[in-house]
Amino acid sequence: MTTDASVFASRREKLNSLLPQQGLDAVALNAGPMQTYFTDLHFHLMERPVVVFLMPNQFPIIVLPEFEKGKTEGIKDLTVVTYGEDPALWQESFSRAAAELIAPPKRIGVEGLRMRVMELRYLEGALPGAKFEQAEPLIAQLRMHKDEAEIDAMQKAVEIAEAALEATVTKVKIGMTEREISGILIQNLYTRGCDPELPFLPIIAAGANSANPHATVSDRKVQKGDLLLFDWGANVGGYFSDLTRTFAVGEIDEELKRIYEIVKLANQAGRDAAKPGAPCSAVDEGARDVIEDSGYGEYFTHRTGHGLGLEPHEEPYMRAGNSMPLEPGMTFTVEPGIYLVGRGGVRIEDNVVITEDGARTLSSSPRELRVIG
Amino acid sequence: MTTDASVFASRREKLNSLLPQQGLDAVALNAGPMQTYFTDLHFHLMERPVVVFLMPNQFPIIVLPEFEKGKTEGIKDLTVVTYGEDPALWQESFSRAAAELIAPPKRIGVEGLRMRVMELRYLEGALPGAKFEQAEPLIAQLRMHKDEAEIDAMQKAVEIAEAALEATVTKVKIGMTEREISGILIQNLYTRGCDPELPFLPIIAAGANSANPHATVSDRKVQKGDLLLFDWGANVGGYFSDLTRTFAVGEIDEELKRIYEIVKLANQAGRDAAKPGAPCSAVDEGARDVIEDSGYGEYFTHRTGHGLGLEPHEEPYMRAGNSMPLEPGMTFTVEPGIYLVGRGGVRIEDNVVITEDGARTLSSSPRELRVIG
Repeated sequence: MTTDASVFASRREKLNSLLPQQGLDAVALNAGPMQTYFTDLHFHLMERPVVVFLMPNQFPIIVLPEFEKGKTEGIKDLTVVTYGEDPALWQESFSRAAAELIAPPKRIGVEGLRMRVMELRYLEGALPGAKFEQAEPLIAQLRMHKDEAEIDAMQKAVEIAEAALEATVTKVKIGMTEREISGILIQNLYTRGCDPELPFLPIIAAGANSANPHATVSDRKVQKGDLLLFDWGANVGGYFSDLTRTFAVGEIDEELKRIYEIVKLANQAGRDAAKPGAPCSAVDEGARDVIEDSGYGEYFTHRTGHGLGLEPHEEPYMRAGNSMPLEPGMTFTVEPGIYLVGRGGVRIEDNVVITEDGARTLSSSPRELRVIG
Repeated sequence: MTTDASVFASRREKLNSLLPQQGLDAVALNAGPMQTYFTDLHFHLMERPVVVFLMPNQFPIIVLPEFEKGKTEGIKDLTVVTYGEDPALWQESFSRAAAELIAPPKRIGVEGLRMRVMELRYLEGALPGAKFEQAEPLIAQLRMHKDEAEIDAMQKAVEIAEAALEATVTKVKIGMTEREISGILIQNLYTRGCDPELPFLPIIAAGANSANPHATVSDRKVQKGDLLLFDWGANVGGYFSDLTRTFAVGEIDEELKRIYEIVKLANQAGRDAAKPGAPCSAVDEGARDVIEDSGYGEYFTHRTGHGLGLEPHEEPYMRAGNSMPLEPGMTFTVEPGIYLVGRGGVRIEDNVVITEDGARTLSSSPRELRVIG
């Protein structure tokens, strides 16, 4: 994804305008999606810290390892402070970076889910007396509203994922293991242009394993009569898709067919409930009502969906009690399921974006029960 | 990897005996490899916290989401405290977990590289007045010394990685992209029994890209005359391998051949320098001297190796100035390289374990220059 530098400057301007809500003077962002969102930098968490300071009325300041400096080339208006391999000198570099701030900030927003104790201690050392406060909800107000380029990237990530699935299911044979199928799927994702870092490890869950919503792939072989569940996604320019489809391997029993049809209706109802002004809880309720009315309520054991974008799970969350109103540009999953322990589970997951007058589903893989193997 | 419960109890005992070194009363471990090492629990970092308290003279205490409770079944002697989906109630669960400690700890060790501000704030709320200190070096004293089962797992992870590479290089053709080759390699890893979570995304770097030690895969096509570098690894029961081999695609120019031979000798010299009692810096020096003596010193831009085990980078680090003595059971990489910007780079990386009287190289893929494509 190529994005104009002005986009990042504009995001920082918006962030600055939000800081007074929480009484913050600045934010300090750790390596990862927040740095990408505000500065177009792409760093992963590693044993060496990479932190970006953002403060109104000045350019971003980054502290990072000397040997990673090349990654900052091409980033406009960035103040760069580097350090060498000896950790004993890293604190001094953090202090030098903090000294570049136009005024010593008293309250600094950080990401509670990403900022680690290592970086926090360097920040505390560099800014003695400052308070570091979790600022995810504040920043989420920006990140939740995707612009067209972001939605385009997610649309492409959906299309790559769907094409990879189709190429994979034609290869599934009785006796293959979940792990083997996972390898084929990943190869198909890469062949179709998925960026290297997957949003998450694909879940391929056969038979009773499909009844575990948090399954990891195993050496379980695909057998006739199995439900076979794929939960997978792709990455385009850092933006993720996250889909689930469940297949029948040969003939499956009647109750499994019945729960499939119920989940399909619940998925539709959840997506139908998604529109501007409706609370997030309405999406959960829409899907959950269908499953509860059919008598399977106790077998739908998780929330209906989560926000999606630069992270595989982000705001907003589609769960009971979440009164946050849906707004145009919000992107999230709708993924109801029914899980019969020891027998099998069905989940059908789509990616949705809220529009001016409703919602658009980015994914279009068939939702009818398909028989494979 | 199946490990007897007594192994984890014994590791905790050893940890308890080390706590006085740093004046610590307890440790709090975040989701990830430390929890695995001390309790056989397998959790990933997610938006919900999972923290384990370890304190002498009592069983471990875990605080985790209610829906993840199933993962603690089969773990002996664990006190379990759960919480529901509403984050407003999570602090209370941390406080309940802390109340299970036999005495309120004053100084608590945490992992600076893994404990996040989110969990830290819950811990501070649960134990007001307690000090939280980074304890990686203390815990590393244990984790650096691998037992036989751990070394066996790493040996298997090496063998799977090597078999997957051999199956992949026979498929490489002129015109394939790095990304496609990466997909084939990952599929081959999974087919051969690699656990789903790779130690890191494989680096496949062709031509000039091989001169970037931190390359990520791109759509660069493999061409005649390229160096083609693979840096990849496998996972067996949470234990990682991490190898690099560099190939010639057809005929390569004389200087590239020359740097290949120098790196091969440097790799051998680094491994030869590895023995009990030698400082970590000796491994770096052994490899670096060969490259410096050949006149390419300025093109070997990184340390010679890093520890390897439950994490892709861990103690001990093979770098200049590191006087830590090598001891039996330590496992690490030896990976010298020469990088000619714009032309190509060579790295040859092996995994080594220190034995009673020397070192054993776990990897055996050929180190002679091989021509493919």
